[in-house]
Amino acid sequence: MSEIQKLEANFLDYVKKMSAYQEALSLIFWDLRTGAPKKGVEQRSEVIGVLSSEVFNMSTSEEMATYINELSKSHELSEITKKMVEECKKEYDRNKKIPAEEYKEYVILQSKAESVWEEAKGKSDFELFRPYLEKLVEMNKRFIQYWGYSGNKYNTLLDMYEPGVTVEVLDQVFGELREKIVPLVKAIAESSNKPETSFLFEHFPKDKQRDFSLDVLKQMGYNFNAGRLDETVHPFAIGLNPGDVRVTTKYDESDFRTAVFGTIHEGGHALYEQNVSTDLIGTPLCSGTSMGIHESQSLFYENFVGRNLSFWKSNFEQLKSYSTGQFDHVSIEEFYRAINESKPSLIRIEADELTYPLHVIVRYEIEKGLFNDEIEVKDLPQVWNEKYEQYLGIKPDCDANGVLQDVHWSGGSFGYFPSYALGYMYAAQLKNAMLKDLPNYDELLESGDLLPIKEWFTEKVHQFGKMKKPLEILTDVTGEGLNAKHLVDYLYEKYGQVYQLN
Amino acid sequence: MSEIQKLEANFLDYVKKMSAYQEALSLIFWDLRTGAPKKGVEQRSEVIGVLSSEVFNMSTSEEMATYINELSKSHELSEITKKMVEECKKEYDRNKKIPAEEYKEYVILQSKAESVWEEAKGKSDFELFRPYLEKLVEMNKRFIQYWGYSGNKYNTLLDMYEPGVTVEVLDQVFGELREKIVPLVKAIAESSNKPETSFLFEHFPKDKQRDFSLDVLKQMGYNFNAGRLDETVHPFAIGLNPGDVRVTTKYDESDFRTAVFGTIHEGGHALYEQNVSTDLIGTPLCSGTSMGIHESQSLFYENFVGRNLSFWKSNFEQLKSYSTGQFDHVSIEEFYRAINESKPSLIRIEADELTYPLHVIVRYEIEKGLFNDEIEVKDLPQVWNEKYEQYLGIKPDCDANGVLQDVHWSGGSFGYFPSYALGYMYAAQLKNAMLKDLPNYDELLESGDLLPIKEWFTEKVHQFGKMKKPLEILTDVTGEGLNAKHLVDYLYEKYGQVYQLN
Repeated sequence: MSEIQKLEANFLDYVKKMSAYQEALSLIFWDLRTGAPKKGVEQRSEVIGVLSSEVFNMSTSEEMATYINELSKSHELSEITKKMVEECKKEYDRNKKIPAEEYKEYVILQSKAESVWEEAKGKSDFELFRPYLEKLVEMNKRFIQYWGYSGNKYNTLLDMYEPGVTVEVLDQVFGELREKIVPLVKAIAESSNKPETSFLFEHFPKDKQRDFSLDVLKQMGYNFNAGRLDETVHPFAIGLNPGDVRVTTKYDESDFRTAVFGTIHEGGHALYEQNVSTDLIGTPLCSGTSMGIHESQSLFYENFVGRNLSFWKSNFEQLKSYSTGQFDHVSIEEFYRAINESKPSLIRIEADELTYPLHVIVRYEIEKGLFNDEIEVKDLPQVWNEKYEQYLGIKPDCDANGVLQDVHWSGGSFGYFPSYALGYMYAAQLKNAMLKDLPNYDELLESGDLLPIKEWFTEKVHQFGKMKKPLEILTDVTGEGLNAKHLVDYLYEKYGQVYQLN
Repeated sequence: MSEIQKLEANFLDYVKKMSAYQEALSLIFWDLRTGAPKKGVEQRSEVIGVLSSEVFNMSTSEEMATYINELSKSHELSEITKKMVEECKKEYDRNKKIPAEEYKEYVILQSKAESVWEEAKGKSDFELFRPYLEKLVEMNKRFIQYWGYSGNKYNTLLDMYEPGVTVEVLDQVFGELREKIVPLVKAIAESSNKPETSFLFEHFPKDKQRDFSLDVLKQMGYNFNAGRLDETVHPFAIGLNPGDVRVTTKYDESDFRTAVFGTIHEGGHALYEQNVSTDLIGTPLCSGTSMGIHESQSLFYENFVGRNLSFWKSNFEQLKSYSTGQFDHVSIEEFYRAINESKPSLIRIEADELTYPLHVIVRYEIEKGLFNDEIEVKDLPQVWNEKYEQYLGIKPDCDANGVLQDVHWSGGSFGYFPSYALGYMYAAQLKNAMLKDLPNYDELLESGDLLPIKEWFTEKVHQFGKMKKPLEILTDVTGEGLNAKHLVDYLYEKYGQVYQLN
């Protein structure tokens, strides 16, 4: 074994140890949300502290620095090692460039800000939260200086969640989206062909919702030998390793859509994690490549499968049989129109697929303004409300339903929001590419055969884990860069039809 | 802060880190048994490997040696630190005295032996397992030389599970037990007053068994804010920390006793772990002090509560209401006699409370013989069968139902079995002491008020965790050492009455 091979082997052991700690942390996270006894939580937090410090220390250690420096010089590394070194270097730089004292101050600020935000939201009192948000923004501005930036300062934050995506790109695609969606939303608001939706809200027993959720996950190709479905207040999917990717959902007995579309959405995330190549197990590459690509998978299934008429042709009867009769006098077309109702609303996480991107764009524009000194924190409520009025035609009645609604900023997560809309655009672009290989897409849905879709995604996206960057995947699969047109076309066609606009 | 105070603080941080890893391992263990997806298990084993190596390395490190050496010299340590140092030293010595190469060989042997044992048991072929068992015994004999021993060689193994208990003590108490139980078992076999039991085996729906199990746990004082009940193939209780102590049980729809007595048994273990003093959280002392004392808690609840007529006076109606009518024509006395049926059987884990100690004594005598070169592994099937015939009056039809039935030896766990019978004796002695403080014991059971019992145990046993050794607890609470008489009296009185022997 050569010196470099030895070093490579040691490096692999080192990152596998970090992955093991991460996996333990993921299990603790899942357990805390699915039924860990309350009284044990305080001590469990100590355990989380110990394990995550260990991971942090390992990622910023002298030993790690040596691996990165020495291995970066070599030209004989395997492709996997090369990518691992890149990934570790990025993490190392991010963590080491901030002075330890400031980092510590920031961690304390984050946890304080989150609890203050909760209180402020409860009281709908932005002023309470304002000083914390100001400090968070200020510290992130300083971090950007430490980390460095190219082009726009905000790019550095974007890069943490969506490597390679910049303000330049987003201005263009989000601009186009906004320009096209705003008038469509207005046309729908004025349409007289509104769907009837009252039948959606009848009592649907929880255990039957669960049965249907399990059916749909199976249909999607979710592997129950490598996962399980549990119930939580906030649904999520979590990959402990590709052989153990768990989904949770929430049941609302007076609105079955919460569970059904929630499960499909999280199922899309889970398929991604279940199908990462086993070659990557135990490495830091063994997970989805970015927030945006992850969201492309969940949104693809939620919207392009779950809200597609063809899908319901093979599933509506089944749903009916689980219900207590709420759909007895409802045709499949009426059902389809109802689940695709669109109307402007104040809360992002309750928004429909058409108005959703506008919620994200509001946040993008604000974040960009904050980090380029064009917007001040103190003006946020006003800026927020104006944008909602301008893009969605409605104005928040209070800050709790406006600028205070999301937890993200209180945790210092700036640059995260764009991923939601990016994922949606990726999904539309991927769908377009998929149709070339699976021109019978709608027929597959009609026959309930979703496996070719999963296989296509595994081949084109899932298997690579973090071996490919998001835009690399997009270009390799679609032959083009980010392009808002596909999503716009989809929305125009679909909503034109649902609301009979033509 | 003095030098020694600084060292003490660092030592505390060090052991808290080890405890954190242990807690993560416990959660993984629980998860693997309650529903972790099969496909993820291989990678999870890697995680277990990483975490347990880390704990092992920390327990045998130079740093640990320094803490032990330096702190042992000090006279200013807190009581807790002193006990922690003792505990760590015991672990350190046990692990360090075996040469690393031999330890490695042993770990490999253990895992091979366990899978060979499984095959041998399946085929009822002792010869297949024999060479592995020989090697395991041989290596343990060598370890005893490394570890050292005082008096009997087997003492060193006993001490691992029940510190302070020796062959000298066990010969005496197990001798007395055997002498008294064997004739009682014979008298019962010859009794014509056998209980009717057929009504026990009717269909009892699983979810109703679960409801009853939850009721009983609540009655016992099990804190559901610090625990949860799940289903597994092999029931167990596990303490992650005192605020999170989980119980599992098994449901057999044609024999409700499995779940009911299994839950009460595990509930007894769980009460112990839930009520260890919070001062000990995060230290290696925050758990039951020994296998035997732990078993005293589970067996106390299973037998002295669960198989007590007074307990059923407050619970039989409830059980009836959950059943589908199997007890409609059964009086409480008939029910009580049925659940206390005793008859010699081949399998330890299916044995009733009267014959159970004999199963344990067989194993004790064999282990003692093996480690004193009085019995050879090759003769085990014959020795085993003879002892069963002599003590229980029945002879195994095959080795699968005889010498091969238990997993313990295949994992190298010699010295563990006696704890089961010790726990039972402790329980009877503790009961005797409890009656002085709670003379209305049976009335408490009749009224369903089990909390004073739990509180008594918390004050006398639970709170101390590992701060007291098993025999220290026994003497402090009862004023005497190990004494078989209390158990013998209990068995004679109870079974004399159930089988109307007088």
